[in-house]
Amino acid sequence: MKNTYRSIFVWGDKHEEVLEKGVIELVKEKFGYTEEDFKQHYLYGDNEVTLGKACSLPEKIIDQFIAISGKENVDSGDYERASHSMGYFFSELLMLRKGMIKTPPDVVIYPRNEDEISLILTLCNKENIAVTPMGGRSSVTKGLETPKGGISLDLTRHFDNISDINEINQTVKVQPGVYGPVLEKFLNTHGYTCGHFPQSFEYSTVGGWVAARGAGQESTYYGKIENIVLAMKVVSPAGTIETKDYPASAEGWDLSKTFIGSEGSLGIITEITLRIKKYRPKNTAFTSFIFKDFVSATTCMRKIMQAGFGAPALFRISDPEETATAFKIKEFDNSFSDKILKSFGYAPGKRCLMFVTVEGDKDYTALAKKKIKKIAKAHGSFHSGGKAAKDWLKQRYSSAYMRDPLMDIGIMTDTVETAVPWDKLLTLWKAVRDYLESREKTHVMAHISHVYENGANLYFTFLSPMKKGEELEDYTAYHKGLIDTIHKNGGSLSHHHGIGRALAPWMEDEMGKTAMGLMKASKDFLDPKGILNPGSIFGESSGR
Amino acid sequence: MKNTYRSIFVWGDKHEEVLEKGVIELVKEKFGYTEEDFKQHYLYGDNEVTLGKACSLPEKIIDQFIAISGKENVDSGDYERASHSMGYFFSELLMLRKGMIKTPPDVVIYPRNEDEISLILTLCNKENIAVTPMGGRSSVTKGLETPKGGISLDLTRHFDNISDINEINQTVKVQPGVYGPVLEKFLNTHGYTCGHFPQSFEYSTVGGWVAARGAGQESTYYGKIENIVLAMKVVSPAGTIETKDYPASAEGWDLSKTFIGSEGSLGIITEITLRIKKYRPKNTAFTSFIFKDFVSATTCMRKIMQAGFGAPALFRISDPEETATAFKIKEFDNSFSDKILKSFGYAPGKRCLMFVTVEGDKDYTALAKKKIKKIAKAHGSFHSGGKAAKDWLKQRYSSAYMRDPLMDIGIMTDTVETAVPWDKLLTLWKAVRDYLESREKTHVMAHISHVYENGANLYFTFLSPMKKGEELEDYTAYHKGLIDTIHKNGGSLSHHHGIGRALAPWMEDEMGKTAMGLMKASKDFLDPKGILNPGSIFGESSGR
Repeated sequence: MKNTYRSIFVWGDKHEEVLEKGVIELVKEKFGYTEEDFKQHYLYGDNEVTLGKACSLPEKIIDQFIAISGKENVDSGDYERASHSMGYFFSELLMLRKGMIKTPPDVVIYPRNEDEISLILTLCNKENIAVTPMGGRSSVTKGLETPKGGISLDLTRHFDNISDINEINQTVKVQPGVYGPVLEKFLNTHGYTCGHFPQSFEYSTVGGWVAARGAGQESTYYGKIENIVLAMKVVSPAGTIETKDYPASAEGWDLSKTFIGSEGSLGIITEITLRIKKYRPKNTAFTSFIFKDFVSATTCMRKIMQAGFGAPALFRISDPEETATAFKIKEFDNSFSDKILKSFGYAPGKRCLMFVTVEGDKDYTALAKKKIKKIAKAHGSFHSGGKAAKDWLKQRYSSAYMRDPLMDIGIMTDTVETAVPWDKLLTLWKAVRDYLESREKTHVMAHISHVYENGANLYFTFLSPMKKGEELEDYTAYHKGLIDTIHKNGGSLSHHHGIGRALAPWMEDEMGKTAMGLMKASKDFLDPKGILNPGSIFGESSGR
Repeated sequence: MKNTYRSIFVWGDKHEEVLEKGVIELVKEKFGYTEEDFKQHYLYGDNEVTLGKACSLPEKIIDQFIAISGKENVDSGDYERASHSMGYFFSELLMLRKGMIKTPPDVVIYPRNEDEISLILTLCNKENIAVTPMGGRSSVTKGLETPKGGISLDLTRHFDNISDINEINQTVKVQPGVYGPVLEKFLNTHGYTCGHFPQSFEYSTVGGWVAARGAGQESTYYGKIENIVLAMKVVSPAGTIETKDYPASAEGWDLSKTFIGSEGSLGIITEITLRIKKYRPKNTAFTSFIFKDFVSATTCMRKIMQAGFGAPALFRISDPEETATAFKIKEFDNSFSDKILKSFGYAPGKRCLMFVTVEGDKDYTALAKKKIKKIAKAHGSFHSGGKAAKDWLKQRYSSAYMRDPLMDIGIMTDTVETAVPWDKLLTLWKAVRDYLESREKTHVMAHISHVYENGANLYFTFLSPMKKGEELEDYTAYHKGLIDTIHKNGGSLSHHHGIGRALAPWMEDEMGKTAMGLMKASKDFLDPKGILNPGSIFGESSGR
């Protein structure tokens, strides 16, 4: 699929997945699909990319970029520009499938070092050219579109260095363009781990994690990226800011925190110092439970977090429908074990799966597992052993691969996540479920996967056949109602995907006018002409 | 000591302390003091306060303040103004002892609610009147002087409410004027603790903790205040910002973090939501060790933090001289136990004391204690049992009371603290010791009391006879050299005392021009006329 739209939007670069048998059955049952429907190649996007829109920058400007970064690192070819025009938000995937790229960047530049970034920013600032920094481009919030054209600044080619590990401080210095597996393999080889495993792990970069304020699947123990970052360097049109690697400080307020979640709107992150921990996979304790209902499962989860013996690493509950879906797909339904479970009152449509791992010192993980089992038992759970959690981890990145084959058969699928204090969690869950299910032919799954003493995230996945010909309008309206529902019910606009252009319209109502003004004041100082990632966070109207 | 300068600067309001026998001996031995010297009442400050400088605000402005907050909450009397003119930085104590208050506030206002604060800010902004918010006024960094006069906004009288505990979310909502003991007693009664016990605990407020980005003695487990604060409300001249109590979020960057450490320069904090934990004192495990030297003690400390079984709550090492001082004061020297210790190679002048407690679940604290003992043993320590740690906790706030009787006999005493990555800790410690000891007749002690996987703080205490008649110049020069030494050796300007006017002169060199510009941009947006705590963080030149 060389140079096709499909090669841009398909998740991953190594292979495409096919739908599992269980998923096919689910689609048949839920949406009334026939065998014929599975043969669709809906909006397949296998045509070659042609932008029909030339680079709009004058040749002398391009020559200056070439003088800065070298000819081989300045690319204004159609395919390169197309592939740097957007990320993986559902509507973006639709646009690519339709071959619609309205505002591609004018040129893609791969800077080789920090000085080049400074020079590029200076030139762009002078000439009023938009600059959007890019890493793995896996944003699911429209975080890196280029509505004003300009430069896509790709950091994956040259900003891929990992400095030596500082074993005394337990830190590592990395450049923003390093991909997840490269970092983790390097660290593991040296006996360490970063502990950051987002769903996008295989194709996202450290810079992207920081810019979007992401979280990994084991964030309950390792923390979100804001807890993992110790220091950073950021180049902006106004100059460079480098924060220190102090373990803590009271030097005014913490400026690192201003850049974590800034989504490329304040500056280009050029170096990041990460906290690392010892890599000791043999110490990991695995366990899993089945609860009778979502209430007892979430209560148990909260009690474990508040018990005072530390936190699990992987810590997930699937809600009843997600649990039922997993059981169906894994062909567990009506098995001997299923019959036993049912006979003990763990009824389909109500029961919930919980996966747990504990990491760290060996005696500690053993104790924590024992404690967790005790609390889970007190909440009426069935102990289903460690294998289920191990199996889940083996396929931990697989769900992202399901999106393409589902869209190929005309099914819209998206995930939206939020964070919420414990006392609002069940109301929010119910309200969002009700909203999503108000759409005809919709399959909704939810889980909790990032857990805190004071609350948790909620992560919703929905599948529904697209309204053919009106896919964009259909999705946009449905998505708007979904975010409205979360917002009204006390959930954050995002727990770890970031804001992007997709959620920016809710920001002022969520944060308040003064808070938005404060954020804009920071942007105005660092990026007075608004050339950096225009439109993101602050909405379409902002920026060059 | 009614209405005297002494009543303002003496630490605590319940009693004054006298010097312990061991301290008296130390002073004799180190500084050659005679019995006669101990009878001094040096710069005793027991004269009555008279400012000789009237409130400079026009009567019609004062009338407006009275209309807003009531006559009983607007005070322009000399004593009230004097006591709201500064904090507990060493040079401030000297000034008060000398009866020198150059720039008192014009008036002290005790606002009754948030609306009044808004009205006061609006009026002050219009009329260009400085406003400095105040809580317990225990700043040791010149954090709350009033160089431009104006209003001291005292939040302790009416902003002292604690809302009900949210037991589901494990949070509590408090107003900024709540003092440490009031909060902790309230929480303990309900089975919870905030876990924040700064040295100033008895006389500092929640608002002050947040504004100065403080840390408590058990911060290794509970975190610094920035880790304890979940959400907050801040009123600024530009409007009100209220952050949400989400357990985590990816809504752009974290604005709460901008106000933690803002030292009253961005707005008035009016409400704070704190994370709380279960209060289970019976579960606390206590232990202590004596190490042969500072290197093995600090290495052991680091290994414990990086071992992967969680963190102690109280976790301290005294360096050899602080250990020797403690042994002298507690009359341990030459006791039977001391002889045994020496015979095993724990030599005075080299040996180091470590105190440890572990909090949380009972089985967890037992396991962690076992693990800590094992690691400590591997680093050649002598296990000195739990009692020493318990005893230390009983007198945990006492050292602050020693300052006054020492100053009464002409001895300058101050503490300065910094944070540093592990790999710079010993170099910094040595360099600061060398600098401090380069002064004739100086007794220097140091400890580590806030510990992280990636580094720790260092806390230096020094005692030295003052140069009589030149106390201010003497101290100022010595302090400057001290901060220069820390700064040059890779330590932060502060780990938990904040910046204030005392450390502001180093800020630009430490943070860099662009970082300072970014901080100032935030201030300029929220406080365009620079009326809030002028001079703090940003230096004397800034503000009205």
